[in-house]
Amino acid sequence: MKYGFADRVRYFGSSAVRDILKVVNKGNVISFAGGLPDEELFPVAAVDAAFHKAITSGNKALQYAETEGLLELRAQLANRMLKKGINKEPDDILITSGSQQAIDLFSRVMFNTGDIILTENPTYLAALQVFSSYETKVIPVDSDEDGMIESDLEEKIKAYKPKCIYVVPTFSNPEGKVWSQARREMLLKLAEQYHVVIMEDDPYGDIQFDPASMPNSLAAMDKGNEYVVYTSTISKTVVPAMRLGWITGPHQIIRLIAQAKQAADLHTNSISQHALLHLLNDYDLDAHIETIRSTYKERMEVMKRCLDEADIEGLTYLEPKGGMFFWVTLPEHMDLESLLPIAVENDVAFVPGQPFYVDDKKRSTMRLNFTNSSPELIEEGMKRLTALLTSVHA
Amino acid sequence: MKYGFADRVRYFGSSAVRDILKVVNKGNVISFAGGLPDEELFPVAAVDAAFHKAITSGNKALQYAETEGLLELRAQLANRMLKKGINKEPDDILITSGSQQAIDLFSRVMFNTGDIILTENPTYLAALQVFSSYETKVIPVDSDEDGMIESDLEEKIKAYKPKCIYVVPTFSNPEGKVWSQARREMLLKLAEQYHVVIMEDDPYGDIQFDPASMPNSLAAMDKGNEYVVYTSTISKTVVPAMRLGWITGPHQIIRLIAQAKQAADLHTNSISQHALLHLLNDYDLDAHIETIRSTYKERMEVMKRCLDEADIEGLTYLEPKGGMFFWVTLPEHMDLESLLPIAVENDVAFVPGQPFYVDDKKRSTMRLNFTNSSPELIEEGMKRLTALLTSVHA
Repeated sequence: MKYGFADRVRYFGSSAVRDILKVVNKGNVISFAGGLPDEELFPVAAVDAAFHKAITSGNKALQYAETEGLLELRAQLANRMLKKGINKEPDDILITSGSQQAIDLFSRVMFNTGDIILTENPTYLAALQVFSSYETKVIPVDSDEDGMIESDLEEKIKAYKPKCIYVVPTFSNPEGKVWSQARREMLLKLAEQYHVVIMEDDPYGDIQFDPASMPNSLAAMDKGNEYVVYTSTISKTVVPAMRLGWITGPHQIIRLIAQAKQAADLHTNSISQHALLHLLNDYDLDAHIETIRSTYKERMEVMKRCLDEADIEGLTYLEPKGGMFFWVTLPEHMDLESLLPIAVENDVAFVPGQPFYVDDKKRSTMRLNFTNSSPELIEEGMKRLTALLTSVHA
Repeated sequence: MKYGFADRVRYFGSSAVRDILKVVNKGNVISFAGGLPDEELFPVAAVDAAFHKAITSGNKALQYAETEGLLELRAQLANRMLKKGINKEPDDILITSGSQQAIDLFSRVMFNTGDIILTENPTYLAALQVFSSYETKVIPVDSDEDGMIESDLEEKIKAYKPKCIYVVPTFSNPEGKVWSQARREMLLKLAEQYHVVIMEDDPYGDIQFDPASMPNSLAAMDKGNEYVVYTSTISKTVVPAMRLGWITGPHQIIRLIAQAKQAADLHTNSISQHALLHLLNDYDLDAHIETIRSTYKERMEVMKRCLDEADIEGLTYLEPKGGMFFWVTLPEHMDLESLLPIAVENDVAFVPGQPFYVDDKKRSTMRLNFTNSSPELIEEGMKRLTALLTSVHA
């Protein structure tokens, strides 16, 4: 039979990143493609103990639970955010199935067909997928390495009257960029002036290579809790498979998100929630995050050295101050999407930059992940990759 | 600031059932209100062992995973469904965060604003909430105790050209009804004739008090895998907190649901998925389901005896052949919604029937859950409830 689907399915699309991931999980391919943390660093024993405690400390923990999430866990997350200057009531925090669901639920309560969202360009691929599934229109704002540029942002706010400005200001995906404090203040000032909600997506904020130098979170700067909706996750610092994230922001928005969440899946996995609560109580997560930081920083430095030593003409990158990615730009005549299959034949993989762009899609960029391979594999994989780039370049 | 929300939030609403649940969790109230399984029956040791195995048997299990769900788990679920005559490829099964998410994702790929869905009346409250959040229009079909009535169903299919017919044919919520085999055949025949997709929601199918007498699942009857989308869950047979359900049906629909799922939350909690796989391999779930069946059947019989002995004039009910609920009808002049606060003062709670209706909302009905209280508490709670009903009635 011929099915009549919703109009929105026209805007669906499988993620290019995930399609590539399916291919490169086979054989000897060294993959810089995914956005995966290193599973060797997972705190398995602590996670095991936390789940055991969650499951055996009372049958109520295995029953249906509140849509908003476990109150004690929300209080713990409020405490952790407070250390970053983000001051939120547990009542204004909602637990989600990863921060991907936070983006989806936020979109569900905010966007009508045709609504405008301003973003960086390039930006997080799977956020673009969510936005387009709500039949919105995404308009990119010109940026440099410090963040969005004031004149272009203000012009586009005036011209398009956007419903929201979506940003990943700290170790952006894919660019690995950190917005300067001045640009953050500028963004918040314009949001207040023109009454636009900001969504601050912060999955990587904890993975800082130099914590001392960090600017403030936008959510910390939004003292009246009026303009910034903030989402984060434990997927990069504990384990992705627990599927736990959270969203916080203006009370009215979070209340509506709770209603949307109830229809979407009743509540987030509560065994995971209880387990995370035990883990935060019993385990030194901050020490573990220090280990992650220093391990990933070392790997970033290995990859940087490989890029520098290859000395490919016209190759540029921004040195990541944290997060998981290098964003590499090559001379404009190079088409990295068509190079990917050849790279995979040579047992190395990356993500071409194209799908991360809203428009003006550059074919000569790529994202390299440095967290999911050991220093030795990074050396070997970069040898394969830079050899290929050099040969194509010549 | 004044926020501009999506139009769909006008159709959101907190569930009356959940709002009541929040109240009755305090004090000495004996609650027949929720739809909760009995947590005393949870197989805690088996769940604990399964999670331990899931977490410690390889770090890959804690990494990001496939959107569709763990392939071995989908194969296991296919095997279990096959025993009920439902023949599906693992590739046409997608793991969801409970069957609530299955209803939501199905809605996301199927419905445009203004689309028509035919349902029973009353029907599952939280499905109605999902459907209205997609700004669809729900049209109720006349039913009797055997299921929808052919003439009214055909008339409404012709008149409204519905996108979907949503049914809970086995131990319906709230009515606890089982559709006859003849009505099931009629429904499928009309769906084929008029090219309408059926959503068969089957959360309670395993909780049969007399397994020998069961008619076929609609999904088992849809030999070409063309017309029936089927969803079920382990929330009633293992534990709700694992938040695991699944959806299966026509290949094209399940593929689109996978794309919707990717945007919605990337993938379902994979520690839970691995744990369920181990549980299905290592634990005799069928024996456990037998225990649940006999325990709940006994409780149903206690509640039935209490209803019969109270001998309230004009009170009628259908004896449940499975599931978790009695649906009680009282004389039309009685308003059970306004009686609820008085019942709670008398330390007993129920759900008024009103929110389960699409239209023609009857104030004189209520749903009583018999699975979450011991026989002793059912006796005591029913004493309180029937005394109140008798006094109001007089």
